This record gives sequence, structure tokens and C-alpha cells, in this order.
Amino acid sequence: MKGEVVFLGTSAAVPTKDRNHTVIFFRYERDRFLFDCGEGAQRQMQKAKKSIMKISHIFLSHLHGDHVLGLPGIIQTIDFMGREEPLFIHGPKGTKEFVDLIYSIPGCDAKFDIVAKEAKGVILNTDEYYVESFPLEHSVPCVGYVFQEKPRKHIDDEKLKAMGIKPGPEYKSLKDGKSVKFKGKVLKPEDFIVEEKGFKFVYVADTRPTQTVIENASGADILVHEATFTHDALDMAKQAMHSTAREAGEVAREANAKQLVLIHYSPRYKDDELDKLRVDAQKNFDNVLVVRDFDSIEF
Amino acid sequence: MKGEVVFLGTSAAVPTKDRNHTVIFFRYERDRFLFDCGEGAQRQMQKAKKSIMKISHIFLSHLHGDHVLGLPGIIQTIDFMGREEPLFIHGPKGTKEFVDLIYSIPGCDAKFDIVAKEAKGVILNTDEYYVESFPLEHSVPCVGYVFQEKPRKHIDDEKLKAMGIKPGPEYKSLKDGKSVKFKGKVLKPEDFIVEEKGFKFVYVADTRPTQTVIENASGADILVHEATFTHDALDMAKQAMHSTAREAGEVAREANAKQLVLIHYSPRYKDDELDKLRVDAQKNFDNVLVVRDFDSIEF
Repeated sequence: MKGEVVFLGTSAAVPTKDRNHTVIFFRYERDRFLFDCGEGAQRQMQKAKKSIMKISHIFLSHLHGDHVLGLPGIIQTIDFMGREEPLFIHGPKGTKEFVDLIYSIPGCDAKFDIVAKEAKGVILNTDEYYVESFPLEHSVPCVGYVFQEKPRKHIDDEKLKAMGIKPGPEYKSLKDGKSVKFKGKVLKPEDFIVEEKGFKFVYVADTRPTQTVIENASGADILVHEATFTHDALDMAKQAMHSTAREAGEVAREANAKQLVLIHYSPRYKDDELDKLRVDAQKNFDNVLVVRDFDSIEF
Repeated sequence: MKGEVVFLGTSAAVPTKDRNHTVIFFRYERDRFLFDCGEGAQRQMQKAKKSIMKISHIFLSHLHGDHVLGLPGIIQTIDFMGREEPLFIHGPKGTKEFVDLIYSIPGCDAKFDIVAKEAKGVILNTDEYYVESFPLEHSVPCVGYVFQEKPRKHIDDEKLKAMGIKPGPEYKSLKDGKSVKFKGKVLKPEDFIVEEKGFKFVYVADTRPTQTVIENASGADILVHEATFTHDALDMAKQAMHSTAREAGEVAREANAKQLVLIHYSPRYKDDELDKLRVDAQKNFDNVLVVRDFDSIEF
């Protein structure tokens, strides 16, 4: 297991008894992020036994309260707990001004650094992965995020074995990227290199479905997509610039995603009615998961 | 039953898995208030099945985040739900500026009126009760609140019966406030009027214990008093300008309160250790209640 996604809040604008405002915890190896940070984020993390102190980056989709009002409390708590490492907050245009506003809330003038950045293109790039943002279509500036693990290269063991090369000096040299001589022929490591596609996670919060979303979600292993309504409420979805579950299913199908995870359900759907959203999405795409608060996916 | 107090958040600055930031729901007859409004207030209310829409007044002790960060979300949600009635927010100096700051948070520019007022003396006065504020001693401006039911007057039935006046015309006239002749004597209603002391609820958030607190808590039926630490951590309590449970007990004893309810426990006390605070307070006062989130008292 390389990582996990924990859904800490699955409600739309108005929360319910069982559904917190939007918060998604994401871990890849040692790196821990939040995607959106609705009110109550810190206690949802405590309940899920995830350390707030270990979050390095928070990726905000947009600045509506149900996606950001957990930030002041988190800043205050980790400051209180002696945080020293900087906290990076990414989001659409206006994110820096919003963070400045938080600073002016009594008690939120943190002693650690908060680095607020407008998300444009690739915003985080390591040896192992990158995070890229792309525009969504909502009533205010809103962005989606792609977490893309970089391709992993490894030697094709099967191919070597088929040629009669067994574990030994030649095998090791090829693995180390060196050419070797074998039965009078020069074998180059690149001929035995297999590129394994990296894991792709895509987060699509409040939006109407668009071609840009489909393109960015292309081939996602996990596509998390808002589904505020079922398709019978399409007019409401259009008016509020949200998506229906069926539309999320269409995006997943067009993007050739492997799994679609629905979030951001309107409070009109009671907790025992969420299956309606799954059924609606499955008109267009098979592998649909309707998550509840604290559900998680390992990858 | 005239009302109830529901403790929706009993944690100090840093919340725990089981303890929300400070929020107290208070109902007297049809009127519903919040005392303080820490992050997560709206979901705590949902879980306790209390309507956010019915809250008319919010009384803030001070502007530290753990007492106020639930406000933006509540404002946003009730605005979303179509609130029309004004919401009154009382608090120490700076409350109006804080509410103005909330207005500038994206999505918090409510369409209903928010009336923010600095709490000084009697701040709410009806036929049945009044609410009065008084200064506390914390690291920032901080106030306590007294909810005082007005005395109720009624005719002393026992006294009338002892005089041989049974239910009938004279009895009714006295009850209606009229003098009557009985066995040749004029009986005045005021001689039979009994004044019944009204219910008194006192809310004391973050503070060092002071004489002012004792005076304002005098004779309280319910005194809710912060108890961040046990007395072995008195130095920490003094430094952070908080009270120990033992000090809260002393205030209750000196004020001759009927019941002391402790809140605002440091996260250093695990949920199964809260009894330490009760024991500590009981060095000075017998009737001590250590409440947990969602505990309630009817009155």
C-alpha cells in the first residue's frame, strides 16, 4: 500500500448530522495533504486518527465556506501545538487574500509560515509525483486537482528469463542500468526497461461537467467527482453550477477512469438514500462508489 | 420544565475526538440562545436535534477562535436556508469588528440582518427575564453572562386556606389583585402575595477567578464555570489566565450557588479522566457536575 484517501466530509453546502462539510485526507507514502477543508476538519481528522500536524499541503477547490471554514481552526490548533514547518495552501485566485483574512481573525496570527499560492498548472513536483490544477466551472473561481505518480521504470524480468538470463552478474548489471555482454551480444538496459504508469488521483469539486474535466481526469485510477444531485434535479444542478451523479458518471466514462467516487451530496438525500446517487451515476459508468464520512480507499 | 441547557462543546482551546470546542445551547420557554460558538457548532446542534434557525441571540464570551469559529458556518447555513429574522450577536469589545470580518469571508455576506453589540450591563430584557454581562479576567477582553428569570408573584394559597378562605368569590378576587371583605375585615391582595425567586443561570468562560465573578454568580441555580486544569496545574492556569476546577469550586461556594457545572477541559485530561476535575472542585463545593458533549440539564 502506497497511500490512502479518507473521505472526512461528504456533504454539500449544508452539512447533516452524519455528513461533514467537504474534507478529503490524502496520503502518498510519507506525504499528507488535504483536499478542501470545510468546517470541522480538525475534529474529523482526530476521529479518523490522522495527525493535523503532519499535513504539509492543503489544496482548496474554491473559497465557498463549506470548503474552507475549517482552515482558521486548523491554523490555530497547530500553532498552539507548536508547529514550525510551513503550511502550503493552494487554491484559486483570491486564496492569498483569504489567508490574509484568516490571519486577521483573533488568535489566527500563526507563528509558523503559511505559504498561500494561486494554483496554476503544476504546483508541486517531487521525484515521485506531481500535483497539477485545472479550472472547473462553478459560480466562483474553482479548480480541480490531479495527483499523478510518475511512471516507474523497472527491468522486464520475464523477458530476461525468456532469453535464458537468470539472476546473476549480467542480470544485476542490466538492473543497474549498465550494458552487458551475453552470448556475444551487447544487451542494452533500455531494451529491457518497462515503464509502469503511475497512480492517478483526480479531485473534482463543485463544477458543471466540462471537456476540461474529462481531459484532466483521463485514465484516473480514482476520480473523485461531486454529485450534488440526482439527474431529475438537473435544472437545480445547472442553476447552482453543480453536477448530477449521472453527469459525473458520464465524465468518468468519457475520461476512461477506473473508479468513480461520488461526494458532496445535497442534504435533500438522507443517509439511507445515498444509493440513489450510485444508481444514477451507473447509468453511465459501472465502477461507482458512494462514500460516507470516514470511508477510505487504500491504493 | 421551563427550559434546558445542552452542552454541545466542552473542550478547551484544542478539541478532542469526543469534545468539541465551546458551545452551549440554552432554551428558556420559546427563546433559544447559544453561549459561545466554537467551530462545529452547527453540526453539534444537528446531532442534538436543535434547530440552528431558531437561535435568536448568541452570547460570546471572547473572540478566541475556540469560542467563535463556528459563527461563519452558522451564518452561511441559515442564510442558505432562507433566514429572515435578525440574529443578535453579543460579545466583548471588538465583537462588531469581528462580525464585520466574518461578512468579508466569501459566502458569509448574509441577506438577513446581523446585529452585533458590545455586551455591557443588561443586554436583553423581556417581561420574563433579563440577560446581563459582567467582565471576566482573561488574556483578551472577556465577559460572563447572567440569565435571570424575573420573580414570579402568586397568591399564598396555604395562607388563605389557614384563614378559612376556600376557593370561591373572595379567593378569586384576591387572586385577581382586588381587596375583599371577609368576616368584616378588609383583606388586601398584597398581604397574600408571595414572590418566588426566578431561575438564575450564570455562564463563566475563560477567566481567572475574581470577586466580580462571585458577586455575579450569587445564588445561581446553575453556575457553568470553566475548569481548564486541576489544581496541581495552578501555575499553568495562572499563566494562561484560566481557572482550576478547585478554584471554580471556591467561586461556587462563595457565590452560594446551587449547582456547579464544569466545562472547558484541557485535552491533557482524557475522556475517562474527567472525574479528576470533579474531585478537585469538590474540595470546595459539593454539587459538581462534569459534563460531556451532548449532556443536558432541564430546569
